[in-house]
Amino acid sequence: MTEISIVGLGLMGTALAGTLLKAGHEVTVWNRTDSKTEPLVAMGARRAANLAEAVRPGSLVIVCVLDYDTVHGLLGQTELRGVTLVNLTSGRPEEARRTAEWAEARGAGYLDGGVMAVPQMIGAPGALILYSGSREVFDRFAEPLGQLAEARFVDTDPGLAPLLDMAMLTGMYGQIAGITQGFALVRSAGLPLRDFASTLLVPWLRAMGELAHRWAEEVDAGQWGTDVANLGVNKVALDSIALAMREQGIEGNLLAPFKHLVDKRVADGHQDQGLQSLVEELHPGR
Amino acid sequence: MTEISIVGLGLMGTALAGTLLKAGHEVTVWNRTDSKTEPLVAMGARRAANLAEAVRPGSLVIVCVLDYDTVHGLLGQTELRGVTLVNLTSGRPEEARRTAEWAEARGAGYLDGGVMAVPQMIGAPGALILYSGSREVFDRFAEPLGQLAEARFVDTDPGLAPLLDMAMLTGMYGQIAGITQGFALVRSAGLPLRDFASTLLVPWLRAMGELAHRWAEEVDAGQWGTDVANLGVNKVALDSIALAMREQGIEGNLLAPFKHLVDKRVADGHQDQGLQSLVEELHPGR
Ligand SMILES: NC(=O)c1ccc[n+]([C@@H]2O[C@H](COP(=O)([O-])OP(=O)(O)OC[C@H]3O[C@@H](n4cnc5c(N)ncnc54)[C@H](OP(=O)(O)O)[C@@H]3O)[C@@H](O)[C@H]2O)c1
Ligand SMILES: NC(=O)c1ccc[n+]([C@@H]2O[C@H](COP(=O)([O-])OP(=O)(O)OC[C@H]3O[C@@H](n4cnc5c(N)ncnc54)[C@H](OP(=O)(O)O)[C@@H]3O)[C@@H](O)[C@H]2O)c1
Repeated sequence: MTEISIVGLGLMGTALAGTLLKAGHEVTVWNRTDSKTEPLVAMGARRAANLAEAVRPGSLVIVCVLDYDTVHGLLGQTELRGVTLVNLTSGRPEEARRTAEWAEARGAGYLDGGVMAVPQMIGAPGALILYSGSREVFDRFAEPLGQLAEARFVDTDPGLAPLLDMAMLTGMYGQIAGITQGFALVRSAGLPLRDFASTLLVPWLRAMGELAHRWAEEVDAGQWGTDVANLGVNKVALDSIALAMREQGIEGNLLAPFKHLVDKRVADGHQDQGLQSLVEELHPGR
Repeated sequence: MTEISIVGLGLMGTALAGTLLKAGHEVTVWNRTDSKTEPLVAMGARRAANLAEAVRPGSLVIVCVLDYDTVHGLLGQTELRGVTLVNLTSGRPEEARRTAEWAEARGAGYLDGGVMAVPQMIGAPGALILYSGSREVFDRFAEPLGQLAEARFVDTDPGLAPLLDMAMLTGMYGQIAGITQGFALVRSAGLPLRDFASTLLVPWLRAMGELAHRWAEEVDAGQWGTDVANLGVNKVALDSIALAMREQGIEGNLLAPFKHLVDKRVADGHQDQGLQSLVEELHPGR
């Protein structure tokens, strides 16, 4: 079996290491704050006394730390010849491309990954990791990578998994912004959130999220009309939300730039178009 | 059977009228732009020659127009004594309370409703309409209201259905903002959106939306810690998205106010808390 090292034992790195240990791999762990190795050592992991002990020729080194600067700060002083790096740290396409070149110039194999899961999902159905970069690395380590999550190779350009990762995170943060502000409105009425979330908000977001399938096809086809809800009526709803926030004593509006986009598109005469048309304001496509 | 009138035949009003006609009701329809009555007349609706013909004593009048100002503009000149108004126009809690008082002072029964469905869902499973105001009106018209969508009475305060409506719409618009900007990122890489939406974004939003159940309970209990993902790592991801947008040639960032909230909370020393803690910045609860 391959020697696997995990560098970085935050919430995600710990979940990755624990899953590989449970799958029966020999796992070496290293973390800046050494105490985080303890629960994993109790599960059978080998603790590396220093970073070089975790980054050895022939080994698969999975790195999952705060950001790419930390990746470079850690591995910049370490011999990489003969090592295979799988970088599961989130970052930008440009960072992944630069890091792939840098690692390969130093004799390492490089695969970039975007983890589309929370730590609790790692090793369980529903978890997905997008990979891009070296197809050879992806194929060679298909077994352990497949134990962490569904492993999907998207392109030999190392930047593509991060790009899709950023796009999916963008969707998620928008959703979280909406949930946060929706929660604030319910709180302002003195109501608890539990029933609101389970009987109203979550089923509603699930149903409305399904609209994205159709919007994607319409945007691909350049179709901007709607028989669902036009921008004019959505503008009124966004005005109402902004005012209701103030009336409920909540300052600011996390939807302000989105509202601005809708206002602009309506002011430009597109009040009869659908919400899918808003993407045109951000990026005109090819 | 009750005489039912639908005032306002936009996308939503047309769906409401069509559903009641299919359920076998006698339905009278009125719309400012008269031509929109035609498809409904072809389905068996009676066309009111003027608004007063649709708003008769003893009848149930369902109003669904652009906004509350339009409701008042239309019904302000009309005799309302003995009429029951069910107002399915979206608006703010304050507007609903004011309109309920106004209608009742003029001798009408009043029920306010928030339609949590798109027109295509009306009359089908999954559609929900929240009602608040007169319980008596709700009970008396339970049958036709139940044919439009699941009918849920939330409070005798007419403002509560609109408040929950605004909170759910806020969640939805946040999600749509995220989808729109995620789409823009994928477009900027020259990729079509269809596969991205169906194989990546929609399942991801569904999985991440489930986190709201737990956040709601944590906020209710005042628990701000996390074993999922701390604000520090989310701050880095939001920084990466902002920079990736620019690198992909997209101006602006619909997540800017949300990013600002996370930045502030991290600057205040809460980097180890979870995303559920952000609601504290908007509303401190009771
Ligand atoms: N948590 C999630 O839900 C999730 C989901 C998808 C992707 N990710 C990605 O996974 C990566 C790690 O996230 P996480 O949730 O595990 O974060 P975390 O719990 O905050 O852990 C951060 C890790 O980075 C290390 N680190 C930070 N600065 C360092 C430095 N200057 N030198 C050395 N090590 C340093 C930390 O070491 P110490 O223990 O010594 O501080 C720790 O191991 C991030 O890129 C994140 O975007 C996380
Ligand atoms: N569509 C949805 O998905 C959806 C979902 C939930 C709730 N709603 C709510 O339902 C309501 C109607 O939405 P919709 O989608 O049906 O909008 P819509 O298609 O734009 O229709 C707007 C309606 O309002 C009428 N109207 C506008 N200004 C008027 C005025 N000054 N005088 C008289 N009538 C006027 C229009 O008459 P004309 O035909 O003469 O213009 C039309 O009947 C809104 O409050 C909306 O928030 C809609």
